[in-house]
Amino acid sequence: MTRSWWGWGNVEDAVRGAELDALLGRVRALLPGGLTDHEPPSVAALGLPEPRVSPPASLAGLCSADPTDRAGHAHGKAFRDVVRNLQGDLRHVPDLVARPRHEQDVTDLLDWCTREGIAVVPYGGGSSVVGGVEPRGDGHPAVVTLDLGRLSRVLEVDATSRAARVQAGVLGPRLEDQLRPHGLTLRHFPQSFEFSTLGGWLATRAGGHYATRYTHIDDLLESMRVVTPVGISESRRLPGSGAGPSPDRLFLGSEGTLGIITEAWMRLQERPRLRAGTTVRFGDYASAVAATRAVAQSGLNPANCRLLDATEALINAGVSVGGGLLVLGFESADHPVGGSLERAVELCRDHGGEPSVDSAGEAGDGRARGGSDGRGRDGSAAETWRSSFLRMPYQRDALARHSVIAETFETACTWDRFGALHQAVTEAARRAVDEVAGTGVIACRFTHVYPDGPAPYFSVYAPGRWGSMVRQWDDIKTAVSEAIAESGGTITHHHAVGRDHRPWYDRQRPGPFAAALTAAKSALDPGGVLNPGVLLPEPVRPQGTG
Amino acid sequence: MTRSWWGWGNVEDAVRGAELDALLGRVRALLPGGLTDHEPPSVAALGLPEPRVSPPASLAGLCSADPTDRAGHAHGKAFRDVVRNLQGDLRHVPDLVARPRHEQDVTDLLDWCTREGIAVVPYGGGSSVVGGVEPRGDGHPAVVTLDLGRLSRVLEVDATSRAARVQAGVLGPRLEDQLRPHGLTLRHFPQSFEFSTLGGWLATRAGGHYATRYTHIDDLLESMRVVTPVGISESRRLPGSGAGPSPDRLFLGSEGTLGIITEAWMRLQERPRLRAGTTVRFGDYASAVAATRAVAQSGLNPANCRLLDATEALINAGVSVGGGLLVLGFESADHPVGGSLERAVELCRDHGGEPSVDSAGEAGDGRARGGSDGRGRDGSAAETWRSSFLRMPYQRDALARHSVIAETFETACTWDRFGALHQAVTEAARRAVDEVAGTGVIACRFTHVYPDGPAPYFSVYAPGRWGSMVRQWDDIKTAVSEAIAESGGTITHHHAVGRDHRPWYDRQRPGPFAAALTAAKSALDPGGVLNPGVLLPEPVRPQGTG
Repeated sequence: MTRSWWGWGNVEDAVRGAELDALLGRVRALLPGGLTDHEPPSVAALGLPEPRVSPPASLAGLCSADPTDRAGHAHGKAFRDVVRNLQGDLRHVPDLVARPRHEQDVTDLLDWCTREGIAVVPYGGGSSVVGGVEPRGDGHPAVVTLDLGRLSRVLEVDATSRAARVQAGVLGPRLEDQLRPHGLTLRHFPQSFEFSTLGGWLATRAGGHYATRYTHIDDLLESMRVVTPVGISESRRLPGSGAGPSPDRLFLGSEGTLGIITEAWMRLQERPRLRAGTTVRFGDYASAVAATRAVAQSGLNPANCRLLDATEALINAGVSVGGGLLVLGFESADHPVGGSLERAVELCRDHGGEPSVDSAGEAGDGRARGGSDGRGRDGSAAETWRSSFLRMPYQRDALARHSVIAETFETACTWDRFGALHQAVTEAARRAVDEVAGTGVIACRFTHVYPDGPAPYFSVYAPGRWGSMVRQWDDIKTAVSEAIAESGGTITHHHAVGRDHRPWYDRQRPGPFAAALTAAKSALDPGGVLNPGVLLPEPVRPQGTG
Repeated sequence: MTRSWWGWGNVEDAVRGAELDALLGRVRALLPGGLTDHEPPSVAALGLPEPRVSPPASLAGLCSADPTDRAGHAHGKAFRDVVRNLQGDLRHVPDLVARPRHEQDVTDLLDWCTREGIAVVPYGGGSSVVGGVEPRGDGHPAVVTLDLGRLSRVLEVDATSRAARVQAGVLGPRLEDQLRPHGLTLRHFPQSFEFSTLGGWLATRAGGHYATRYTHIDDLLESMRVVTPVGISESRRLPGSGAGPSPDRLFLGSEGTLGIITEAWMRLQERPRLRAGTTVRFGDYASAVAATRAVAQSGLNPANCRLLDATEALINAGVSVGGGLLVLGFESADHPVGGSLERAVELCRDHGGEPSVDSAGEAGDGRARGGSDGRGRDGSAAETWRSSFLRMPYQRDALARHSVIAETFETACTWDRFGALHQAVTEAARRAVDEVAGTGVIACRFTHVYPDGPAPYFSVYAPGRWGSMVRQWDDIKTAVSEAIAESGGTITHHHAVGRDHRPWYDRQRPGPFAAALTAAKSALDPGGVLNPGVLLPEPVRPQGTG
C-alpha cells in the first residue's frame, strides 16, 4: 500500500470504477455541475524550495528531505488541505521530516530544534482537519516535522489491570493487532482509525467508538509520558486520583504545543462477545431528538447512539425517513445486552419511533457477526451506514477532484439549546452555501450523546468552482462557526482547535485560563518551538535560547 | 444546631450517653488504656492574638473578628486538627473571617487582599483533612479566611439538560433540598456530605456516592465560574468538548490556590426509583479482591461496590467473616437493576463468595425504602455499615477526647500492584503503630473501584498518649505514606493534597507539570495570596503588587 501524498489514506483504496460512477451518479441527482475530474499534480511539478536547514550529523539519519515526504507532511486531511494539494498550492512545507526511532531520538531532535530556534511540528498520522500539522513556521527560521510513525509498539500488557503501555506513534489497526492476542482492545475507533495514531488521539482529545460515557480518548488514558524542552513529564499509573489538578488533562488537547507524547498506559477492554442493535425510524425530527435524549439520560449507555437526520439517512444509509433514523447498539464482554436494547427501543416508541423489523434476535452472541476490527453489525441500515462511514474520506477526495465541496463540522451543546442551535447553524449553512455555491445539501447526525446534550455533526455538499473552492468552503465555515459560537456550542467536539478554529476558540476559552495556559507553555517550551501558531492565542516568541 | 468549633459537625450530634458507652466498650475490647475523657478548652482560654489587619469600611460588614469564629476556622477536621483543638494548640488563626454575600463581595475581598498582600484561605465547609484551610500565612502579614457559606442557592435549573447552576458555598443537604422539588439530585454523597460544600468538592476533587464510573465530582461538572486576582474565569456550558486542554480540569483540584470558585453548572440525575443490593461474604481476602475486580471489570457499574476486610466488617458492619464482605448496590431511575445484581453475584460466586440470604427480592421499586437523602438500603449488614459510616467522624472525635488515635488514609493503585501495596502499607502501619502506641488495629475497605484498580481506604485505631497524639499519628502517617509512594499508589484518592500530603505529592507530580502549574499560578495570582503553602511546591512570593 502507498500512502497518498495529497489525499486520504492509501492510493490503492481511492474511489474508482463502479464506486466512483455510483458516487457521481448520486451527486448528479442532488447537485448541478459538470463534475470534471482534476488530476493531482506530480510532486516534481510542485517546485518545492530547498530545505533551509541541515541536521547535525548525529541526527541526519533520522531526517528526510525527500520532496514527496515533505509534500505529504505539508497539510492535514481537511477538505481545504486536499483541495490545496490538488491545486499544487503548498505555500509551506516542512524543511525536514524527522522520524525518531525511540524516545531518546525525540529528545535529541527537540534539543537541536530548541537550540536553533527551529519550529517543531509533532506529527502522528497527519489526519488533522484543523490545520494542526501545518508547518507555517510562524517567525521561526525553519520547520521540522517530527513524524512519530516508527514508535509503533505495544511495550507492555498488564492483563490484570487491563492496561497496556503503548508507543504514541502507533496507528489504530497496528495497535489493535498487537492487543488482539491478549483478548484485549482499546476500542477507540474514530473515523480516522486507520490513519491516525494514539499520540494524535491524545494530543487532540479524539472522539472514538463509544457514543456515550467514554466518548473521548481522555477517559481511556491511565498515564502518559511527554518529552518537553525542559524534561520528560511522566505521570504515575493510577486508576483514579485526586492529587491536585490532573497532569494528564493539561497535555490532553495540547496539540503538540506543550510537549511530544511518546508513550501512554491505556485502559483496555475485553473484546465484546455480546451485542444487540437496531435502527429506529422517526416521522419527525423533534421526536427523534426527544427519543435520543431519553436514551442518553436513561443510564443505559449504548455503545452506539447515532441519530441521522432525514438527509443523512438518505445519503449515507440509503433509508428514506420523515424525521430521522436512530442507530442503536449495545455491547458487552460480560453479560447479555438484549434487555438494554429493549428498554431503549421502548423509550423510542414512547416518542413515536418504529424499530426496524430486522432487529429482533440481534441480542446474544455476536462473535460471528463482528467485523475484523471487532465492530458488530446491527441490521442492514446500520451496516450500510457504517461501511459508508469508513469510505467517506475517500469519497470526499473523489468529490474534491470533481469540484464538489464536501466537508463536515461538528459541535456540542446542552439539550435545552439544541433546537435553537440546530436551526441557527442550519440556516447559516444554508445561506452561506446558497451565496457561495448557489445550492447545496446540509445533513446532520449525532456522533455522541451525553445526558446533558448531543454532539451534532454536520455535512455539507455543494457544487464548487475549481480554483475557488477553499475560499468557498472558508466562507461557509466562518458562517457556521459564528452561528455555533452565538448559540452556545463548542467550536469543536472532537476535531481539535489547530489553526482553523482559533478565532472561535479564543472567544470560547476563558481569559484567565488563556493566561494560565500561555504561562504553562512558556514554562515548558521557553523557546516557543513547539507547534507555534496552533491552539495558543499568540506564538510565544523565541527568547534567545538559540 | 450549633457547629462545633473544635470538632466534627453539630455540638448536639456529638456521641454521648448509650452510644458513647457502647463505643468505649467496643474500644476497650480491642485496645488497652484508661479512656479518660478530656474536655475541649473554652475559646476564651485560647488567648487568641488580636487581628493584625482591619478591613476597609466598605468590607467591614462582611468580616468577623469573633474569637469563636476565628478559632473555628483555624483547622480542618482531620484527627490531628481535632486533637490540636482539644489541646488548645491553635498556633495560627485567621485574622478575620470574611463572609461574602455574592460574587461581587468575593471580588472586592480578593482585590483588597491582593492589594495588601494578605493571604486568602478560600473556605467551604472546612472539612479538609489535609491542612487545606490552615491559615499559616506563609510570609504574608495577615490571613483572611474567605468563608463562602452565604453563597448557598441553586440559581437555575435546566430540567431538559438535567443540570443546575449552583452557588459554590452550598452544603450538601441544602443543595439536595433545593433540587428535590425538581425530581433531580446531584447524588454526590461524600462522608462529609452534611458539612462540606460544592465549591469545596470541586476544589479538592471530592469522591462521592458512586463506587464506579462517576467516582469524583469532576465528571458531574458541566462548567464553572472562578474569581481570580486577574479576572473571572467562566467556562461554557457544554456536555463535552475537545477544544484544547479542559479549562475546568485546571481548577478541579486547585485547592483554592488558583482562584475562588463561586458557582458551577452541575450535571444532575433523576432520583433513582429502582434498586437492588446485597452483601457477599468471602472466606479469604484474595478471593474477595479477585471477585471485586471481576465486578469492576464487568461493565455492570454498581453504584456501590465496597469491599470491607474482615476487621472493617467486624468493627463497622458487625459482621464476622473470614476474608471480606462486599457491599453491592445497583440503582436506576429508568430500568430494573435486579439482573445486574444477579450477574454481579454470579461473578462473586465464581470466586467463592456467598451472598447474604436477605438480598433476595431487593430488586424492584425502592421508593419506600430509600433514606431521606435518597440513599437506599441494601440488606441489614450494608445498612449497619452505612449508618456507622455517617457517625464515624463523630465517633472519631469522641475517641480523640479519650486519647484514642483514630484516623484514616486512602490511596489508589492498579490491580497488578494492589497485593504488594496492601501488604507493604499494612506492614508499615503495623510497625509504626506498634512503635508509637504499642498496639492497635488496622482495617481496610475499598471506597471506589475502577476497571484498572481499587481505591483502598485504611482505618487505624490505637491507644494514644494525651499530649503526644499528633506526633504519634504523624509518625504513622509518614510511615504509610512512604509505603504508598514506594508501592506506586497515589498519595490521595479523594482527600486532596493540602499541606499534609505535600512531601509525597511533590514526588508524585511530574517535574515539568509542576513547572507548568507554578507558572499558571503566577499568571492567575501574581501576588501569591491564594492559599499559600497549599498544593504548590513553594509559595509564590508576593511581587510588589501591595
